[in-house]
Amino acid sequence: MNIYDVSRKAGVSIATVSRVLNGSPNVSERTRALVLDVMDELGYTPNVFARGLGLGTIQTIGIMCSDSSDPYLAHAIYYLEQGLRAHGYDSILCCTGNSLETRQKYFNLLRSKKVDAIILAGSKLVEMEPEDNRYIIDASKSLPIMLVNGCLKGENIYSTVCDDRAATHEATSKLISSGCRDILYVYTSHSYSGVNKLKGYQDALTGCGLPIREPYIRRCPKDVAAAREMLLRLHGCGLKFDAVLASDDTLAVGAVKYAHAVGRGIPDSLSIIGYNNSSYALCTDPELTSIDSKIEDLCTATINTLMGVFNGSNVPSRTTIAADLIKRATTKF
Amino acid sequence: MNIYDVSRKAGVSIATVSRVLNGSPNVSERTRALVLDVMDELGYTPNVFARGLGLGTIQTIGIMCSDSSDPYLAHAIYYLEQGLRAHGYDSILCCTGNSLETRQKYFNLLRSKKVDAIILAGSKLVEMEPEDNRYIIDASKSLPIMLVNGCLKGENIYSTVCDDRAATHEATSKLISSGCRDILYVYTSHSYSGVNKLKGYQDALTGCGLPIREPYIRRCPKDVAAAREMLLRLHGCGLKFDAVLASDDTLAVGAVKYAHAVGRGIPDSLSIIGYNNSSYALCTDPELTSIDSKIEDLCTATINTLMGVFNGSNVPSRTTIAADLIKRATTKF
Repeated sequence: MNIYDVSRKAGVSIATVSRVLNGSPNVSERTRALVLDVMDELGYTPNVFARGLGLGTIQTIGIMCSDSSDPYLAHAIYYLEQGLRAHGYDSILCCTGNSLETRQKYFNLLRSKKVDAIILAGSKLVEMEPEDNRYIIDASKSLPIMLVNGCLKGENIYSTVCDDRAATHEATSKLISSGCRDILYVYTSHSYSGVNKLKGYQDALTGCGLPIREPYIRRCPKDVAAAREMLLRLHGCGLKFDAVLASDDTLAVGAVKYAHAVGRGIPDSLSIIGYNNSSYALCTDPELTSIDSKIEDLCTATINTLMGVFNGSNVPSRTTIAADLIKRATTKF
Repeated sequence: MNIYDVSRKAGVSIATVSRVLNGSPNVSERTRALVLDVMDELGYTPNVFARGLGLGTIQTIGIMCSDSSDPYLAHAIYYLEQGLRAHGYDSILCCTGNSLETRQKYFNLLRSKKVDAIILAGSKLVEMEPEDNRYIIDASKSLPIMLVNGCLKGENIYSTVCDDRAATHEATSKLISSGCRDILYVYTSHSYSGVNKLKGYQDALTGCGLPIREPYIRRCPKDVAAAREMLLRLHGCGLKFDAVLASDDTLAVGAVKYAHAVGRGIPDSLSIIGYNNSSYALCTDPELTSIDSKIEDLCTATINTLMGVFNGSNVPSRTTIAADLIKRATTKF
């Protein structure tokens, strides 16, 4: 018995049931009476959405991420926890690793705790195969699912994403304007975010009449040494590149170390752009130009949307936030 | 009404009451009968410690830290969450910032949730002034308090610490053996851990017959740029130093950048040692020699101790774990 049963039986949307539960004025008296009657009939006790009534809620949100020690996710968790706390919510943290099976297990565990919502932090928690996300869509029938920098369609699923495609488009265009022609794109994952970053890079090349060349698109583990070694190998094979655009600062740090190892000047002989504008960007000499993916803004927007859902407000199912290109010393612009 | 009332009334220790609750064989029949009688008399329902009975527990541990986006604490939270999950416990995370007032507020909030224990992650959550830790000691009368890399005395308080003093002693001694005489010690905090790191540095100097000089002991915010600027300033003032021992890798990265800025060779003209062996240590050229403070081991030991407390086992109130000196390219040894 849940809000969906009430919605179905009354023939109104979930948002409407939620508004009734919260005493919102944006419901006609006729509808309000109908919904309340159906609730009585079904013996429904408001829970998840019943913020205004303060009933049946544990004021706790489940936060899932693959690995809270990853710097990007560590910041996400920090901002989410702080933001939820400010609204009076506790956060139960689940670090799931990268196996789908473990993720499903922890997801169901959180559901069994009757958390008020689940936040999935990080692009990698959404699978490429639609069937593999079925458990999330099914769960959204009984509680709101919030995605931070991930995207999945479903009635009670809300995504907040960074406009990664526009960001890498801008970065690549700037590299081209500053004279680079052989831009290596190095990335770690085929996630939603990963796919968009790659598209932005390709868009910019095409827009400038430059070819998209497979040898210039390279996957690499998210690891400084792995990136350095891969670039040394490509260098050894004679691949010519005058810029590296990386999907993560870690890889960009590896590019700086590659340049040092072979004696290439930065940015004169090699331009480098990282992603996430993490503290790694400040560790290298020269410091990294990097794309700020606005994780704090993403988390704030996610929480605002969630509070809107709880309050029965009309909230967008998808919020997009623009990235910023932070110029430092590894680029000529 | 709690386990302490039972303990007091029965005239036995809390550990004994806990053993009775868990059906441990290490209790005499006479004592067992006495404790059970007192429980009946007081109308006591087992909660926090009653693992074996599976009653009155929410199987949830509160984890407090100042800032989960700090890399050291981010790893601590990751290992704690994973370890607790493996034992069937949820983790409620609280990021408290650095104000004592906020910490107390969140601490009491966790207590009001009836969590089974509270883990304080990070040395900075214990104050220098005993009176300021009173709220922790008071709370330990009703639930176990676990400290990760912090130290506080109390009957139901358990500390797991890294032997920071031995670690900086070894590092400083190695610097001296490799020819360094003017070793700058740069640190961020006067926490329990901070004080021990400083003592280890001083011990080593004294042990080698070298003087302890105030101008060589410098406090600095935990920030790459701040450390770099401070060293540039000291350099400008004419202070001679041939090594930097830092209480955090961030500061050591700043030292590498200072050396690059003034053209000093590493390690020939300047040796550098960081602390925590974080991913920052791999970002610089050359890579940092760093002290591995074994955060994973600390977290594992903390959880083992906590499970021991829940099971009524005899557990040490303090566990000390040795650090490792990881040699890379910023030192001559």
